[in-house]
Amino acid sequence: MSKPAWTAEPSTLLTVRPGFVLAAVDTSSTPGFSGGKKAGEAVLAATHETVNELQERLWAESVVGGRRSVLLVLQAMDTAGKGGIFEHVIAGISPEGLSVHAFKKPTPEELSHDFLWRVRRQLPQPGFIGAFDRSHYEDVLIARVRELVEPAVIERRYKQIRDFEAELVASGTTLVKVMLHIDADEQKARLADRLERPEKRWKFNPGDLDERALWPRYQEAYQLALINTSTADAPWFVVPADRKWYARIAVQRLLLETLRGLDPRWPAVDYDVEAQKARLDLS
Amino acid sequence: MSKPAWTAEPSTLLTVRPGFVLAAVDTSSTPGFSGGKKAGEAVLAATHETVNELQERLWAESVVGGRRSVLLVLQAMDTAGKGGIFEHVIAGISPEGLSVHAFKKPTPEELSHDFLWRVRRQLPQPGFIGAFDRSHYEDVLIARVRELVEPAVIERRYKQIRDFEAELVASGTTLVKVMLHIDADEQKARLADRLERPEKRWKFNPGDLDERALWPRYQEAYQLALINTSTADAPWFVVPADRKWYARIAVQRLLLETLRGLDPRWPAVDYDVEAQKARLDLS
Repeated sequence: MSKPAWTAEPSTLLTVRPGFVLAAVDTSSTPGFSGGKKAGEAVLAATHETVNELQERLWAESVVGGRRSVLLVLQAMDTAGKGGIFEHVIAGISPEGLSVHAFKKPTPEELSHDFLWRVRRQLPQPGFIGAFDRSHYEDVLIARVRELVEPAVIERRYKQIRDFEAELVASGTTLVKVMLHIDADEQKARLADRLERPEKRWKFNPGDLDERALWPRYQEAYQLALINTSTADAPWFVVPADRKWYARIAVQRLLLETLRGLDPRWPAVDYDVEAQKARLDLS
Repeated sequence: MSKPAWTAEPSTLLTVRPGFVLAAVDTSSTPGFSGGKKAGEAVLAATHETVNELQERLWAESVVGGRRSVLLVLQAMDTAGKGGIFEHVIAGISPEGLSVHAFKKPTPEELSHDFLWRVRRQLPQPGFIGAFDRSHYEDVLIARVRELVEPAVIERRYKQIRDFEAELVASGTTLVKVMLHIDADEQKARLADRLERPEKRWKFNPGDLDERALWPRYQEAYQLALINTSTADAPWFVVPADRKWYARIAVQRLLLETLRGLDPRWPAVDYDVEAQKARLDLS
């Protein structure tokens, strides 16, 4: 028997392409991975170091003028596991090469600007991996469901997002856009768990059930956002997330593949190594 | 034989008190820890989860109005291991509760303000652990050694720093100020290693040897800064750092003790749990 492992790349299996139907995704599936939970956890732990070394190379490249960066955009319904991705995947990355931002309800100042204004302020610097907990996509998700703006504005925003992301890609940022996808029953079980366990109760607020009541409208808003903003240069990946362990290794693998694709190299140095060794000897 | 472990707290053993003499510290010692490298690495790995849970409680507390935070200030001579602390200690903390900032050579804009201006902009929000790679202490270290300002200005800055930190403490931020301390021979060996290994060469630049030539003056500047700014509410800890594994568990332990001292609790909730369970059942 062979060791459980990736048999196909999530970047191929989970991509949103024309004709994609969110409702057809099996949220409990584990595409491309041949093992179960235990094997998945082993893969997660074993892969941190490789991700880290590639990130360090990306950072090193930036020290000598490289402009490349990576930006993970995480979107999901409540309880789908964004927090776990940060705690178990992103936490492995050296924090000095990492910039994380959680987008909350917009402040009055943020609302006084274009919806992309606050996002532009949080983009990763060269050499960094950025990670967004929610993002500019809220402005076509909750904004659509809650009718915060006119439908025509939402339609316009899809194009604004495509243009914005094309601009990011052109300036050296590789986007990894991930929707963690659970089904409504799984959310119910997870909310019940939050209510059951005293150390989880603070994560729940009654407004979560108001949002839950709008589940079908959110699914529709996601479907439209995914189809309208998944491009060749900045595709969306929909990660089945009923099994937390799978969602974690899938996101980790997407980051790993992205970094491998960038193939950052240790920079050549512009000083004379032997001359510096001689100076050091005398010091 | 008992399991290697902490036999006394680093917060007690490593504190800078009146009469402290930096030159008398044995940089290769491992105060308070009964084991060696292997035992230290096991402690490091085993303690991440406890630190994380305490950090999550601190964060949870802030969600219901708590104002407390922790700020690790890391200072050290070049190669002393700050990067390793970020990669092996801080990286264990969930990045959504963490704010990291590396202070570089001040920009013209930063120089146009008071030296504390740029530091105030990077303070941790309530519920966060902040970590500074270098800090406002550069303004009494390199500033003294390189004579960037008049001596009287340096003297004044000690008091400004004490006042600033007292203000932070009063507003709910617990400071953990750490100097990683290596000796000059250890630095020489580590610089030689950077020159030897191609994947490390980008970390070296010839200016590092100019700084090294000023070693005694830096030691003097550290001695003065430590003595003048170690207070009861915001003490300095000098961590022997020739053994990287020891420095890492010592800093981790200082953070752990700090968080335990804060003793953050899961917040009580202000909704009726049973009523929400009933609502969820119907959803």
